[in-house]
Amino acid sequence: MEGKRVIGLAARDSSGHLKTGTEDVLLKVLFCGMDHTDLLQIRSEIHPPSYPLVPGHEVVGEAVELGSEVKKFKVGDIVGVGCLVGSCGECLYCDSNLENYCNDRLFSYSGINKDGTYTQGGFSSAMVVNQKFVVKIPEKLVPEQAAPLLCAGVTAYSPLKQFRDSDKILRAGILGLGGVGHIGVLIAKAMGHHVTVISSSDKKRVEALEHLGADAFLVSSDGTEMEKAANSLDYILDTVPAFHNLQSYLSLLKVNGKLIIVGVASKPLQFDSDDLILGKKTITGSFIGSMEETREILDFWAEKGLSSMIEVVKMDYANKAFERMERNDVRYRFVLDVAGSNME
Amino acid sequence: MEGKRVIGLAARDSSGHLKTGTEDVLLKVLFCGMDHTDLLQIRSEIHPPSYPLVPGHEVVGEAVELGSEVKKFKVGDIVGVGCLVGSCGECLYCDSNLENYCNDRLFSYSGINKDGTYTQGGFSSAMVVNQKFVVKIPEKLVPEQAAPLLCAGVTAYSPLKQFRDSDKILRAGILGLGGVGHIGVLIAKAMGHHVTVISSSDKKRVEALEHLGADAFLVSSDGTEMEKAANSLDYILDTVPAFHNLQSYLSLLKVNGKLIIVGVASKPLQFDSDDLILGKKTITGSFIGSMEETREILDFWAEKGLSSMIEVVKMDYANKAFERMERNDVRYRFVLDVAGSNME
Repeated sequence: MEGKRVIGLAARDSSGHLKTGTEDVLLKVLFCGMDHTDLLQIRSEIHPPSYPLVPGHEVVGEAVELGSEVKKFKVGDIVGVGCLVGSCGECLYCDSNLENYCNDRLFSYSGINKDGTYTQGGFSSAMVVNQKFVVKIPEKLVPEQAAPLLCAGVTAYSPLKQFRDSDKILRAGILGLGGVGHIGVLIAKAMGHHVTVISSSDKKRVEALEHLGADAFLVSSDGTEMEKAANSLDYILDTVPAFHNLQSYLSLLKVNGKLIIVGVASKPLQFDSDDLILGKKTITGSFIGSMEETREILDFWAEKGLSSMIEVVKMDYANKAFERMERNDVRYRFVLDVAGSNME
Repeated sequence: MEGKRVIGLAARDSSGHLKTGTEDVLLKVLFCGMDHTDLLQIRSEIHPPSYPLVPGHEVVGEAVELGSEVKKFKVGDIVGVGCLVGSCGECLYCDSNLENYCNDRLFSYSGINKDGTYTQGGFSSAMVVNQKFVVKIPEKLVPEQAAPLLCAGVTAYSPLKQFRDSDKILRAGILGLGGVGHIGVLIAKAMGHHVTVISSSDKKRVEALEHLGADAFLVSSDGTEMEKAANSLDYILDTVPAFHNLQSYLSLLKVNGKLIIVGVASKPLQFDSDDLILGKKTITGSFIGSMEETREILDFWAEKGLSSMIEVVKMDYANKAFERMERNDVRYRFVLDVAGSNME
């Protein structure tokens, strides 16, 4: 089983062999979130595989060594690393705080470094990352709470921030209640929106309404309820990473409403052009977020006193966690307690 | 043949039987543009049909009688009427100059008046329209030139106006060179954009570049050229009223680029979610435009000294014109010379 490789590789670097350049931060990994992408990646279902492969891109650690040019962190700081550890630094997107859209963005693992080696992620005792791609974790946040914000959190926040300062109460839909979706609910509620969770079944009703504080729950297979909700939402954050029928969700949007897709489907998605036209509706995509937005979501989280729902597990539980993740049996994010695990 | 009915009905009202309410303008029709929707409508291919049916929603006329509450026009004014002649006047959209998205919008023909009768369009000697849906034609415009602006023009202008004041030279794509497309090219050029016309064949290259002043011409079936143009456009105005492969056009957009659909396709359209996500791209729709935008495009046209390409024909040519329109044999809009036709 592919997953086993992960564990075997996790302890690649407790020896201090990692080289720290002048702009680099060496961090001792404390916690690392587990994302669905990790699972797809170790199975080579996305990207060309590059074994040995250490996944993990929601990394919280302690800065233990700093390159000579690193001024914004000090040794002992609790810091975070998300999906990206590099970009070209020169293009239009890098210049305008959109380095997540840079053509030469370097992913935290399975990316190719300038020396031809592969980047390796946070299921590991240590990591070396250029300071531009390291963020400080606000002191008010406990480290394991910060982990899911570094990918899932900023993925939800980046497209939602446009609605942050609305002067009316926006009506939001969150489609899919997983890692990204549950954080989306919390962000939208904290922005003062009226939040409807849209799900394919009734199973998550209680947790949506009671644990996460959503205002309404809509089962997408319930035609009557879907019809009642037609033309009622200002936006929908669509987190479903699989083929689904967009049209029924577009119908929920008001004139000028936006459907924001953040989960990749392997088949093309479809919509009816007349509904898009007659309702001036928009379908748009959004990919993680920038470093600036990563800092913003961390500050937003701390300022609003929010708390994501995580299950902290040890490294030796990683394969089991992947299995449960696949069955959707997690509320809502596994976070590996890397420093607290026996990695020998 | 359905089309014959049109001619038979055009002279429905030269007798003055039309009643003018206090808010109404009675106009003597001078010119009326011919739109593809007219053809679909008389054939009942869209909307429930309501024969007898007088099409025509790009109407330019002379105000000959005014209701007692009509202050903003005077007798003798050259005025225009577009696709809409009514809306609820009370909803959020009516309140925010978006009456074209009002649920109770009343179309210029085949719409149902409060008294249960059907509205009838501009292939007619006279029309009575509420002043809210009548616009003044700027004196600098010749009446027949103004006609296509009242539907095709505002359909292109409404989504393009968001780009009007860009501080950089935007790279625009105009997909499809028909009534709306050719006006789109002229508007985008007048806004200072770099304009690429995208067409399914090479046939319109000369007219796009030389007659309309586009900067580039791209044949969508030419894979090599399409690949060269990848990630180069800020927006595409997509005027194709039929099923087409969206993905190849989405690939032409830069990060943050917008594909704006204004032509209804009868089958669902498709796109790849990964491209939308990784490029933060947007697919959006737009439906004609508001009354305010109709006034804006008329003023814009007059101010920039623009000229649409039209072919003025008499009423007895209408069926022939529809036949030619269907073969795409018009550059780019037929305008009926209603007042100059023998309607007996």
